[in-house]
Amino acid sequence: MASPGAETEKPGNHNDFVQLCNPHVAAIKEDVLYHFSLSTSTHDFPTMFGDVKFVCVGGSPSRMKAFIKYIAVELGLDHPGAEYPNICEGTDRYAMFKVGPVLSVSHGMGIPSIAIMLHKLIKLLYHARCSDVTLIRIGTSGGIVLEPGSVVITRQAVDGCFKQEFEQIVLGKRMVRNTHLDDRLVQELVRCSADLGEFPTVVGNTMCTLDFYEGQGRLDGALCSYAEKDKQEYLRAAYEAGTRNIEMESSVFAAMCNACGLRGGSLGRSSPNCPPSPPPPRVSSRAPPIASLGLAPALPPRRVSGPLRWDLLGLSRGPRQGPQCLCRDSRATERPER
Amino acid sequence: MASPGAETEKPGNHNDFVQLCNPHVAAIKEDVLYHFSLSTSTHDFPTMFGDVKFVCVGGSPSRMKAFIKYIAVELGLDHPGAEYPNICEGTDRYAMFKVGPVLSVSHGMGIPSIAIMLHKLIKLLYHARCSDVTLIRIGTSGGIVLEPGSVVITRQAVDGCFKQEFEQIVLGKRMVRNTHLDDRLVQELVRCSADLGEFPTVVGNTMCTLDFYEGQGRLDGALCSYAEKDKQEYLRAAYEAGTRNIEMESSVFAAMCNACGLRGGSLGRSSPNCPPSPPPPRVSSRAPPIASLGLAPALPPRRVSGPLRWDLLGLSRGPRQGPQCLCRDSRATERPER
Repeated sequence: MASPGAETEKPGNHNDFVQLCNPHVAAIKEDVLYHFSLSTSTHDFPTMFGDVKFVCVGGSPSRMKAFIKYIAVELGLDHPGAEYPNICEGTDRYAMFKVGPVLSVSHGMGIPSIAIMLHKLIKLLYHARCSDVTLIRIGTSGGIVLEPGSVVITRQAVDGCFKQEFEQIVLGKRMVRNTHLDDRLVQELVRCSADLGEFPTVVGNTMCTLDFYEGQGRLDGALCSYAEKDKQEYLRAAYEAGTRNIEMESSVFAAMCNACGLRGGSLGRSSPNCPPSPPPPRVSSRAPPIASLGLAPALPPRRVSGPLRWDLLGLSRGPRQGPQCLCRDSRATERPER
Repeated sequence: MASPGAETEKPGNHNDFVQLCNPHVAAIKEDVLYHFSLSTSTHDFPTMFGDVKFVCVGGSPSRMKAFIKYIAVELGLDHPGAEYPNICEGTDRYAMFKVGPVLSVSHGMGIPSIAIMLHKLIKLLYHARCSDVTLIRIGTSGGIVLEPGSVVITRQAVDGCFKQEFEQIVLGKRMVRNTHLDDRLVQELVRCSADLGEFPTVVGNTMCTLDFYEGQGRLDGALCSYAEKDKQEYLRAAYEAGTRNIEMESSVFAAMCNACGLRGGSLGRSSPNCPPSPPPPRVSSRAPPIASLGLAPALPPRRVSGPLRWDLLGLSRGPRQGPQCLCRDSRATERPER
């Protein structure tokens, strides 16, 4: 067995066909992607998915469905009466939608849930012989010292102790993976946002926790053994360590993109839940929605091979804002979805 | 701040009103349970939920809907045309159904996802002034050296290193919680199963992992750096440490039940994915379904106050098997849901 430990190898170069980091899969006769309700023996993956260049993932199935509708309009692929069926309709574990070269997939909440989805997604892309694929996670997050509506572009995911790594237990032993996201993609996303000039954007570290309440210093869970000042101290330390927002999926997302040689980016729409000083203005539930995160209108469908057109990947423009639900922050002030 | 560390305190005794382990919540004017799309200011929790005595939780929304229909029939509360609406219809994060004193709630996959649900569920039970509540997790799991269709009643949840504890990071510090489940409930469930005599039942430790693939020794993920023999050695060690099945939620379930003084039980329908020796018979996808896990027909709705009638809590009887999908094992051999 390979010794668990720091992992630096990448199985493929960017702009290559998607590769796995598992020699066993090539010997599998039928690969059943159970949680997608898809199988290599019953579905023609190259025909269904071979043209995929961008995969956008987010927590909620309904948001990812709204996202694919929005993208279809942006890409000029929408038409009256168009429907975007859930490719994974045989299961309620995840939902998947596709338009042109863009796949939109839900991943539920938390590291284990997104990890199961990513294992299957990467195998899907491998079986479909996809190349030059970029993965982008879009989601909500709790911001630290940020103007409401800001977007954080993740440079590196860190854990609850601010360590810049993703630790997991493999066969009872600790393995550590790299959580640094693609620098070129980060810079392209920064440029896209600057071109738009519609909302504040920062690049920073994203803290990825296993727990939503105690793990993020919340005071309103069923369990809490600390006080407001303890929370403030913790968030201040997080900020000083370079953390700009907190969510629950980015570390394993970054780790798996790195391990499989995929370009990955993580975007979080954030509201402040604690500036170090002075005390935070409470986040209004009426905070102005930012434009939905998406692919720029100019992205040519089915012609995104060769060098990736990073300049075409960005945040939506103009008056078309897309569904606001994509951007709502659920972390800082909880509001019922109505 | 209370020092993170081993936690032994329990805020309430069994058979009491549900209590929280958080002094801050009492001061909250409006408690918004965002991921349930419920709020104390817009919903009358005591009226909606005050009679709840049993909460059954499982991963999939559709399975938990099927479960509530099954329970309604078992309790004699079903009638032609009866519908069981999703109480959380305003969100797609979780689904919740109720009939009589039984609540059925989905929790998604993995520790973070079930933990978010449990924080909100326990606050819901607290705001509703529920008493004498028992939580039971029902789900699928990967069995170790078990006859297909066996049910594992969890005595204690362990982590991927076989440690009998649940570790989490709270404000950057390690906190450890107790994962031993209620012994009396374990024995009652054993007796129920013995009375039924319909399927093998074992009591054992349940390993709860953060990862479905590498965390459980699978060879078919997008990432894998070990061989079949390494997997076999790991599962053999798990078995020798008392582990009888593997899943992804039990540790935080046990920890939160303990911390809030709630009786909790965990039942997993398992198939073997690796006996130590000789080599495993492959698990058939046609393994006989076991009876669905449920509440016995004799359970009197809305009259389950006072000492809990553990003898009434059991596994379903007779020819009525309920929806088989509740029992399918998704771990040992993956099959598409059709």
